[in-house]
Amino acid sequence: MSDDERAETLGDLGEFTVIDRLVAGRTHPSGVLVGPGDDAAVVTAPDGRVVLSTDMLVEGRHFRLDWSTPYDVGRKAIAQNAADVEAMGAAATSFVVAFGAPAATPGAAAQELSDGMWAEAATVGASIVGGDLVAAPLWVVSVTVLGDLAGRSAVPIGGARPGDTVAVVGALGRSAAGYELWCNDVRGFADLRSDHLVPTVPYGQGRVAADAGATAMTDVSDGLLADLRHVADASAVGVDLSRESLTADHDAVAAAATAVGADPWGLVLGGGEDHALVATFPGEVPAGWRAVGVVLEGPARVLVDGASWTGPGGWRSF
Amino acid sequence: MSDDERAETLGDLGEFTVIDRLVAGRTHPSGVLVGPGDDAAVVTAPDGRVVLSTDMLVEGRHFRLDWSTPYDVGRKAIAQNAADVEAMGAAATSFVVAFGAPAATPGAAAQELSDGMWAEAATVGASIVGGDLVAAPLWVVSVTVLGDLAGRSAVPIGGARPGDTVAVVGALGRSAAGYELWCNDVRGFADLRSDHLVPTVPYGQGRVAADAGATAMTDVSDGLLADLRHVADASAVGVDLSRESLTADHDAVAAAATAVGADPWGLVLGGGEDHALVATFPGEVPAGWRAVGVVLEGPARVLVDGASWTGPGGWRSF
Repeated sequence: MSDDERAETLGDLGEFTVIDRLVAGRTHPSGVLVGPGDDAAVVTAPDGRVVLSTDMLVEGRHFRLDWSTPYDVGRKAIAQNAADVEAMGAAATSFVVAFGAPAATPGAAAQELSDGMWAEAATVGASIVGGDLVAAPLWVVSVTVLGDLAGRSAVPIGGARPGDTVAVVGALGRSAAGYELWCNDVRGFADLRSDHLVPTVPYGQGRVAADAGATAMTDVSDGLLADLRHVADASAVGVDLSRESLTADHDAVAAAATAVGADPWGLVLGGGEDHALVATFPGEVPAGWRAVGVVLEGPARVLVDGASWTGPGGWRSF
Repeated sequence: MSDDERAETLGDLGEFTVIDRLVAGRTHPSGVLVGPGDDAAVVTAPDGRVVLSTDMLVEGRHFRLDWSTPYDVGRKAIAQNAADVEAMGAAATSFVVAFGAPAATPGAAAQELSDGMWAEAATVGASIVGGDLVAAPLWVVSVTVLGDLAGRSAVPIGGARPGDTVAVVGALGRSAAGYELWCNDVRGFADLRSDHLVPTVPYGQGRVAADAGATAMTDVSDGLLADLRHVADASAVGVDLSRESLTADHDAVAAAATAVGADPWGLVLGGGEDHALVATFPGEVPAGWRAVGVVLEGPARVLVDGASWTGPGGWRSF
């Protein structure tokens, strides 16, 4: 890319030139029958059902361009959508992306965003089959994911039953720790700071949970307590978490919590955006998952070590 | 609704209360296996393929809340997505919606937006199966549509062949005329002003065109010349439009054009957002469609009455 090309903005290039560049040289899985460039994409749905979910990321609210590279933003946008599909026991197959940005945005930044999206999509064998590019006063990235259940029953959020074991796979509190480090401008802890920018979704574990008979599942986007509260509400059950079972999660963020003056339990129990999976199992917990609590009879509530939790809570959208 | 409820904002209510209200009492077609409230929706795809497309509408760019009611914005957002599915020869079946808005937005405005979306979706027998609600400094509405081909081959944008007849169904230039009336604060012409706020998509005609053997199709979102240029480029053919065949379209906007000092041909040939369908047919044009031109050998170009068009052109995203 020449310096001139690097300096070109979305406004200079125009929608269609930008889109032509973003889709050039990309390769799609065989299930993509019609890819970008037509009014709509056409993809196969061999299962006879499709899973779909959408998430919107807004600059300044869900990401900051002085913290994240455009590549990071792209990976995060795809990852958090793919996590929703995992939480049903399915695998992401296709994404469509709507991107709003100022006309002064460098074309190269849009390319980096797209590259990050493609990189994350590739980790699950999926591709980006279509999109929309519009002018907006700030970056808005809206992703929709399609997923395939491959014959499995979808794991609902509301199927937990008293006596089930609550188990988790993936990180807890690391994204929230990273967020506090960024906010407080604390150096070091590079892994946690990075985990805030791009979560590591436990891809494939949603299907493992489904095959192991999970009765309920969700991804931890709002925080373990908040997301388990959704499971509890939808299932009309209680949940009791054991902090002892979360010691390793606590310890992994303890030093960072100290550095920013935060409560490590607040990070582990209240921190969202790691996109771990939490599920309930009537029997044995699958390999790689860690048991963290039990399902109680209703009413719907989430306890910690048998008592109400009075520490920091979950994420609030508004 | 009490006055207190009407005055509540999204920030007062919080994400989950707003979503609970938006989804309450809605009924879904039988193909919706898992609707709102879980990590993702699950819908049937009996054809074994799904059509999907996404469009983002940004306040101030794609709609103005001093012109449009929230209900209008909801209808338009659904309509323009459904039109992309029509343009493949398919029918819209499901939508997911991401909505960004300031915390100070009245909850009632979000309800009206949702009501408009549901009303438009209902006209095609579809429903809204999921979504996301986030804080943003202005309204951003991002919709993704799924569609069903019911065994048909998708009609591509790039299949036009020399000798085909170019035909249109639906309005041309009316949205653009309405836009000029709004911009110039010209009263009267209520139908055109309304057509700008909510397009009338010729639902079902995409399938009619597919069944009639259409070789290429797109919806008129950017303007007839601009969208036919996409057909011409993708098909490596020329297109020659006949203005005589568009006399009725011209006459329908002529008085409004005079009132705002615009060229009626500019509105008819260059105006987008009506979401008419334009297709190419090797044989007879289906009932309800009007022949407006012919497909020529390449190179890719769009002529009007055999010559280059030097009047006003299409829409530019940036």
